[in-house]
Amino acid sequence: MTWLDLPADTTFGIHNLPYGIFSTAPHGHDRRIGVAIGPYVLDIAALAADLRLHVADIFAEQTLNRFMAQGPTTWSEVRQRITDWLVSPAHRAAVLPHLIRRDNVQLHLPVSVADYVDFYASQHHAENLGRIFRPDSAPLTPNWKHLPIGYHGRAGTIVVSGTDVVRPCGQRKALAASEPAFGPSQRLDIEAEVGFLVGTPSKLGAPVPVTDFATHVFGVCLVNDWSARDIQSWEYVPLGPFLGKSFATSISPWIVPLDALQHARVQPPPRDPAPLPYLRDVEPWALDITLEVRLNGQLISRPPYAAMYWTPAQMLAHMTAGGASLRTGDLYASGTVSGSATNQRGSLIELSWGGTEPLTLPDGTQRTFLLDGDEVTLTANAPGPHGRTIGFGEVRGRIVSSVSA
Amino acid sequence: MTWLDLPADTTFGIHNLPYGIFSTAPHGHDRRIGVAIGPYVLDIAALAADLRLHVADIFAEQTLNRFMAQGPTTWSEVRQRITDWLVSPAHRAAVLPHLIRRDNVQLHLPVSVADYVDFYASQHHAENLGRIFRPDSAPLTPNWKHLPIGYHGRAGTIVVSGTDVVRPCGQRKALAASEPAFGPSQRLDIEAEVGFLVGTPSKLGAPVPVTDFATHVFGVCLVNDWSARDIQSWEYVPLGPFLGKSFATSISPWIVPLDALQHARVQPPPRDPAPLPYLRDVEPWALDITLEVRLNGQLISRPPYAAMYWTPAQMLAHMTAGGASLRTGDLYASGTVSGSATNQRGSLIELSWGGTEPLTLPDGTQRTFLLDGDEVTLTANAPGPHGRTIGFGEVRGRIVSSVSA
Repeated sequence: MTWLDLPADTTFGIHNLPYGIFSTAPHGHDRRIGVAIGPYVLDIAALAADLRLHVADIFAEQTLNRFMAQGPTTWSEVRQRITDWLVSPAHRAAVLPHLIRRDNVQLHLPVSVADYVDFYASQHHAENLGRIFRPDSAPLTPNWKHLPIGYHGRAGTIVVSGTDVVRPCGQRKALAASEPAFGPSQRLDIEAEVGFLVGTPSKLGAPVPVTDFATHVFGVCLVNDWSARDIQSWEYVPLGPFLGKSFATSISPWIVPLDALQHARVQPPPRDPAPLPYLRDVEPWALDITLEVRLNGQLISRPPYAAMYWTPAQMLAHMTAGGASLRTGDLYASGTVSGSATNQRGSLIELSWGGTEPLTLPDGTQRTFLLDGDEVTLTANAPGPHGRTIGFGEVRGRIVSSVSA
Repeated sequence: MTWLDLPADTTFGIHNLPYGIFSTAPHGHDRRIGVAIGPYVLDIAALAADLRLHVADIFAEQTLNRFMAQGPTTWSEVRQRITDWLVSPAHRAAVLPHLIRRDNVQLHLPVSVADYVDFYASQHHAENLGRIFRPDSAPLTPNWKHLPIGYHGRAGTIVVSGTDVVRPCGQRKALAASEPAFGPSQRLDIEAEVGFLVGTPSKLGAPVPVTDFATHVFGVCLVNDWSARDIQSWEYVPLGPFLGKSFATSISPWIVPLDALQHARVQPPPRDPAPLPYLRDVEPWALDITLEVRLNGQLISRPPYAAMYWTPAQMLAHMTAGGASLRTGDLYASGTVSGSATNQRGSLIELSWGGTEPLTLPDGTQRTFLLDGDEVTLTANAPGPHGRTIGFGEVRGRIVSSVSA
């Protein structure tokens, strides 16, 4: 459909067109917005200026924020225009000089993140953690099926894929110990998640209904919410996770537009009890995204996002139900994506059942939690039109030893 | 000491010199940095340009962030320069045209807040809440005396003093009810707190020791962390407060420089057990700040910040112990300041003991939680040099009814 000669199995085809921030100069001084297409980045900052697109200047920014702030009409117009450039042979000569092989660019954090909220929207994940941590109680807390539980995370430590993750130090208390000790986390974990980026802001005091999801949310990325389980379990009562989560959260560099996921929309699982009216689905916004988790290149899990109890539209409605405003650049993530099967769990604490059942990797080595030097990569695919696949690229991070160990 | 004729009882004297963002034009188009002195704002943006201060351009910004990012050497130089202007009669003629009566300016949110963290650093407050919510357990959780408990709040809903607060709607479940209901909060509360603004950023993976507090923290403000207790108590297990706190957090418009609080430094209360080494006090950073809480103009509490268990230097060291980086504009607050006496409690839930013992106001009316139309004002004073008082101005907010009630 495009005049470009793309590999047949590319997941960055003409129906995807994710946005990112790239540079070609040393030190990233020339950051600008690009669109991934096959093995290339289309330099839309340069192309839009050449072709006199009326919003050309917003593509020369160092983050997607100004573009995301334009709202869905501009998002659609720009997407249509980029599609035209890559489909109509008339544009071939103008476009070709602005295609750069992705091997030759650096990718950067695509957005300046405003507030970061992390949810807990997988029933399988919440039940697994309940069984591991509170074996004598009901696995779900009484509120769980009434509202998408969430909390604010640290926006300032969100890093782009490829950034090394320093093993955090912190207080952790062994069950048998009477006092906590300070040192490097011994239960360093991943959380495989899907993230949603807000483009259109909202006003303080004005809740955003479930029906306005696509008006506000610009696109979707992958999130690895690194978690130090030992630090978290000592600190989190009563005010929730803090240092167990604040040292790093990695996101994928390519933001897949919501428009690219129309074929991935599916019905959410049945909910019982029925959610309160402000959380009732009007249009289905569950998404058939399948994640893959690799540890040092070896596949260890395939978490299915379609199995999530709460949809991103419900999370958005809940987040704003009390009147909290949205800002361009707000990022909210699903929480760990886990399916019902053991090989669909999105965290090592589930895969190793709290560290009691080491996971055997395809190469025969075993893991409970992450070792220094381990590299974790998340990828994901969703169905696109005409049997094509929409890819999300990857979010990758390697553990390096504590500085102050 | 200044050539300006100031009221003898001003708390914005020559030893204070707090910074804020003000405007004089309609709609606030001409926002810039000013310094409060007596009943005036000194337009340092204009004055610094006139007097060719080398960093003059940073005062024409719409927030304090660029100035705060300069670090303590510049903060001290600028403070010394402003003191000179207001003390040396030689500068009188140059300075006078840039003094504007505070009645004639609008004040704005002084900073673009990066991450917002709220602590829980008052032992009296934590014990009171423990007794109210968990009467059959120990009032403090086992971790409380080992680490300053904190969590991330919503930075995007931090508003400046004077902004109305819309009563939030949300899910709350009556004890006797089997299901939650959605509607306006019926237990809307205040939290009287002290906030600390980070100027100098730090690197990801590099903890900031307690000894570096004054290198990173630029100044201090008052915080009212409005809280919907019914929404909070239903949602907060297991991941902490979310919508119960995210609808609004009000801060005072004047940021008192840390340098102005040297005479307010006192020894913190004794700690038992001794904190882990990374949390040990080197210099005393407890601060003798006395807050006053007024409801519709009537004094209801005088919370003493000096009684806090954890100091702001310890909170900063803890927040970064896992390697989390600081950004210019990070705000962290103490949590509710409560003293040992009943009239030193910094929240209505404590003052009315969970709503069971209505508070009688000086005018004879009673309150458990806030009614629509109620206006809450926090002020505070600290000792300055030569028997003078350092004031913090005020943080004020009025409750307006829910939009979707």
